Amino acid sequence: MSSQPTAVVVLIGNEILSGKTQDANLRFLAAELAQAGIALSEAIVIRDDHDTIVKTVRYYSERHTYVFTTGGIGPTHDDITAEAVAGAFDTHLELNAHAAAAIGGERSHPRMKMAMLPLGATLIDNPVSRAPGFRLHNVFVLAGVPTIARAMFDAVRPQLTGGAAIVSANADVYLKESDIAVPLTQIAAANTDVEIGSYPFSRDGRFGANLVVRGTDAPRVDAVMTMVVEAMSALGAEVQRHA
Amino acid sequence: MSSQPTAVVVLIGNEILSGKTQDANLRFLAAELAQAGIALSEAIVIRDDHDTIVKTVRYYSERHTYVFTTGGIGPTHDDITAEAVAGAFDTHLELNAHAAAAIGGERSHPRMKMAMLPLGATLIDNPVSRAPGFRLHNVFVLAGVPTIARAMFDAVRPQLTGGAAIVSANADVYLKESDIAVPLTQIAAANTDVEIGSYPFSRDGRFGANLVVRGTDAPRVDAVMTMVVEAMSALGAEVQRHA
Repeated sequence: MSSQPTAVVVLIGNEILSGKTQDANLRFLAAELAQAGIALSEAIVIRDDHDTIVKTVRYYSERHTYVFTTGGIGPTHDDITAEAVAGAFDTHLELNAHAAAAIGGERSHPRMKMAMLPLGATLIDNPVSRAPGFRLHNVFVLAGVPTIARAMFDAVRPQLTGGAAIVSANADVYLKESDIAVPLTQIAAANTDVEIGSYPFSRDGRFGANLVVRGTDAPRVDAVMTMVVEAMSALGAEVQRHA
Repeated sequence: MSSQPTAVVVLIGNEILSGKTQDANLRFLAAELAQAGIALSEAIVIRDDHDTIVKTVRYYSERHTYVFTTGGIGPTHDDITAEAVAGAFDTHLELNAHAAAAIGGERSHPRMKMAMLPLGATLIDNPVSRAPGFRLHNVFVLAGVPTIARAMFDAVRPQLTGGAAIVSANADVYLKESDIAVPLTQIAAANTDVEIGSYPFSRDGRFGANLVVRGTDAPRVDAVMTMVVEAMSALGAEVQRHA
């Protein structure tokens, strides 16, 4: 899967690092990026700190095809993402006329802080609450509120160039992981064009593992999943392959 | 809060970056660390890739008081955390007799992979499924399964040296964030010993913000929260302060 474009998600917000808030954006973005044929290499959660945001956005934007940030684009004092993303590209904020029009109202109102965007930014439409996100170079700056982040991602999807979609097959096996490790390792070693994952579970008092095969070549993913299911059946395991 | 020890959480697992799995460890660890008086500086999600784990663990262990990893310590081919953490400290795996005893059974069984721990590691007890986690220097290696990760964290809590617990106060204000931004910014600027966050919500069709004051000095947190509530009331807002 090395020919895929790569992305990093940067979740910005003290509330996630304090345990106050459960992040609800990463899983959505991860699934959407896989579907778009973009490999999510890493995700990072950082504080609302100017220098940290500057350093993190710069680091990842230089090394990956796309960077997606969430959080910190509202009108209050702790919303510093726009200014920091500007800093990451050595530019500054200015009142963006399109953003100001989208937000509406008096230019002197505090909500106009949300129209102060980096020079050269293009807007990402916000159909939920009007204040837009923005794109600067390869960085997409989305809201932290999940409904808005999702709407913004929908708006930017057409701008993304992906590789082949990453598809997966999976099956539940009712044996302990240590009892399936040997054949699974053999199959993984012999089929390095796909990725094989094993995720243990305990369900109604029974131990098992969810086995996942992922790759960009759907027939190969299917064929390797078939090998996995046959190997598990040969161990005498109950196996449930999912659609 | 600059005198707090600092920590980083490293979530290891392709399944989180593919969108298959919703992480359920970060919020728990974040809340526990705050309670223990340890400031969680960052969290990062990385793939099950040897070099990435080595580089990430080494980077953060050199810069923070504690590092906590979750995931990748089972018996299958994709469980490579122990070997990579050993690599981060330029050491190697060996059969740990205490871990082998905890796991039980034949030394030739594949489950003994979980007893292969870095030289110098000390065990973290696993009351759920026996295979232990481990500590190596300032790095705590926990399971990915949330029930096990939590039990392991409970086991290591007495080993952690924290500062004063980080306490918080919070209140819901039923005004749009842009209508509270000016007084909130003034209070934040005048009280930099605490951290003030504003998190917008839409509830039953009404816009509002959850305002949070955090710090290590409980009377100061309380006093600043009182200022915030009074300022919001002065705007004519409905304010609900929580216990």
